[in-house]
Amino acid sequence: MQADRRIAGMRVALELAKRGVRGANPLVGAVIIDSSGSILATGYHRGAGTPHAEADALTRLGPIPADAAREATMLVTLEPCNHVGRTGPCAQAIIDAGIGKVVYAAKDEGSEAAGGAARLRAAGVNVEQGLLETDALDLNHRWFLARAGKRPFTTLHLAQTLDGRIAAADGTSQWITSPDSLRHAHQIRSRVDAIVVGTGTVLADDPRLNARDEHGRPFDRQPRRIVMGEREIPAGAALAADANWEQIRSHDPRMVLGRLHEAGISHVLIEGGSSIITAFLAEDLVDEIYLYQAPIFLGAGRQSIGDLGVGTLGDARAFRLDPIDGESVQILGTDTLTHLEPIPVRLPGRSTAS
Amino acid sequence: MQADRRIAGMRVALELAKRGVRGANPLVGAVIIDSSGSILATGYHRGAGTPHAEADALTRLGPIPADAAREATMLVTLEPCNHVGRTGPCAQAIIDAGIGKVVYAAKDEGSEAAGGAARLRAAGVNVEQGLLETDALDLNHRWFLARAGKRPFTTLHLAQTLDGRIAAADGTSQWITSPDSLRHAHQIRSRVDAIVVGTGTVLADDPRLNARDEHGRPFDRQPRRIVMGEREIPAGAALAADANWEQIRSHDPRMVLGRLHEAGISHVLIEGGSSIITAFLAEDLVDEIYLYQAPIFLGAGRQSIGDLGVGTLGDARAFRLDPIDGESVQILGTDTLTHLEPIPVRLPGRSTAS
Repeated sequence: MQADRRIAGMRVALELAKRGVRGANPLVGAVIIDSSGSILATGYHRGAGTPHAEADALTRLGPIPADAAREATMLVTLEPCNHVGRTGPCAQAIIDAGIGKVVYAAKDEGSEAAGGAARLRAAGVNVEQGLLETDALDLNHRWFLARAGKRPFTTLHLAQTLDGRIAAADGTSQWITSPDSLRHAHQIRSRVDAIVVGTGTVLADDPRLNARDEHGRPFDRQPRRIVMGEREIPAGAALAADANWEQIRSHDPRMVLGRLHEAGISHVLIEGGSSIITAFLAEDLVDEIYLYQAPIFLGAGRQSIGDLGVGTLGDARAFRLDPIDGESVQILGTDTLTHLEPIPVRLPGRSTAS
Repeated sequence: MQADRRIAGMRVALELAKRGVRGANPLVGAVIIDSSGSILATGYHRGAGTPHAEADALTRLGPIPADAAREATMLVTLEPCNHVGRTGPCAQAIIDAGIGKVVYAAKDEGSEAAGGAARLRAAGVNVEQGLLETDALDLNHRWFLARAGKRPFTTLHLAQTLDGRIAAADGTSQWITSPDSLRHAHQIRSRVDAIVVGTGTVLADDPRLNARDEHGRPFDRQPRRIVMGEREIPAGAALAADANWEQIRSHDPRMVLGRLHEAGISHVLIEGGSSIITAFLAEDLVDEIYLYQAPIFLGAGRQSIGDLGVGTLGDARAFRLDPIDGESVQILGTDTLTHLEPIPVRLPGRSTAS
């Protein structure tokens, strides 16, 4: 098989990976090719609780003759996992399917899922690593960073005016963005393990912080509600409606994320207010942003972002449009939604060799 | 002919009008239909210096038999003009083509171009007005407002960070937006009659304020360069490179626009700085906005918009995504470009009757 067929297949896997959503799990795509390089099946991971990319591709492949399987190669953007999480171990599924060769782009090191390559090799599967590795690392660079830091992946919710304000001079803030934006925001809430807000937001807005559909009905899966800060929360606060909440008496985002990681929380949504958002951004602890912008100007009132310690333009906190999960810029009713992720500062691993 | 065929034709004309660009002239579309309602030709206005919509449609129609022309109806979103500007009068062109009937949506009153309907009637053309009038007025509501106010149409250029800043704490501001955004901004410059900046921008950045292509070469058509404010401009300022500039020693946007109107200027680009932008927005003198946003946060430094006199959310300056001239939200390199226009407060004229 020619090397360029494998590269082409891995590029398809990378593109498929982008159909997933960011969060607790990395974006992963998989392509199964035959000995001529023709694609037999493809798969990708759709988010926490759904099949991994390899399992998805194997399901789509279905049963094939043993000699055809032995001749086939699975191209996958991340090392197949070796643990039983919400789904079975992918390494074993590949072995069971009789696939003769696996080429993966990026290593999965230092997690309970690691060791998939070793397991495959032990079962006689031909394994290679490193094809388009830089692209694969780039695709999930913040997920790798979050895991290395032993903290949850973080999504920032930012809903503001075009001049970057989240409240008018008199404090009015409901609702800056449109019902379409709120609906989208609730879908994101339903995807995460926990929502973090500051005590100020609770005292000012008394939010319920649950995830609701367009009819106001709570989704089955609800995030844990976390309040950061030291001010006392009133006993009758709306977010205290059931036991699935907690106050962490700290202003230190790293400490809060550490606590949440220990509690088994893998994906956190940061909702505000301004001081919380600023603290996470200043510490480079924001892994993606959903920026909802209403087409209005206030000219005064509370700004979304406070002092980040940035003195000059070259030190600005730099993001890039995130092309995964659909369009990076969408129109939501009257508003725009921009999906951003931090620009990778440096990537671990090797260069893109094939 | 059935009324719904005419409505359908006028809707096509309105959609065609949106392919134009805002500025000195209104957006206008025209459709010529036969007695059965079938479309024979369409046209629209592409911007100052190009044929009007009616002339464009007549050119595309080409010569047809006199009896066919007599049976034809021109549906046009604005009353055909009656003056010789950069193009000949459309009313006469319609008469010369022998078109038997004209239906126009919105009246063109109070300008030197008015009187087209009367001229058509005097030549024996059957003329009706009012079909989808509200839609036609809505499409050009700010152009009508600017003309009623005897002032140029204004376009606001706003290039900022995601937190609404136009300079960092140390004053650095070049370049917040990407080369793609700058290229687009120069195309807009090449479209307008004049650019307005404040003395502060001249003293801080010493801009040339000409319109250049991607190779840095000036376009043939150059806007007049207007400096607002009372501070002295240095003799060697870059914008004073030739005589096509002027300082207007005022901070009053309405006064400045009045002066420019008297000088025959129909379309003005407001470029900054913050106090100039704020003054025009506060006085509701911004007719459209090109908002360039770089995906960065500064957290400190100069904000694009200052005090607008808005105290509460309900009084925010409200805009809407402008669907004309392509997409209202575009990606320009690393940046996003959002095209906005003010929400119409009230429309003159009648309701949408047909």
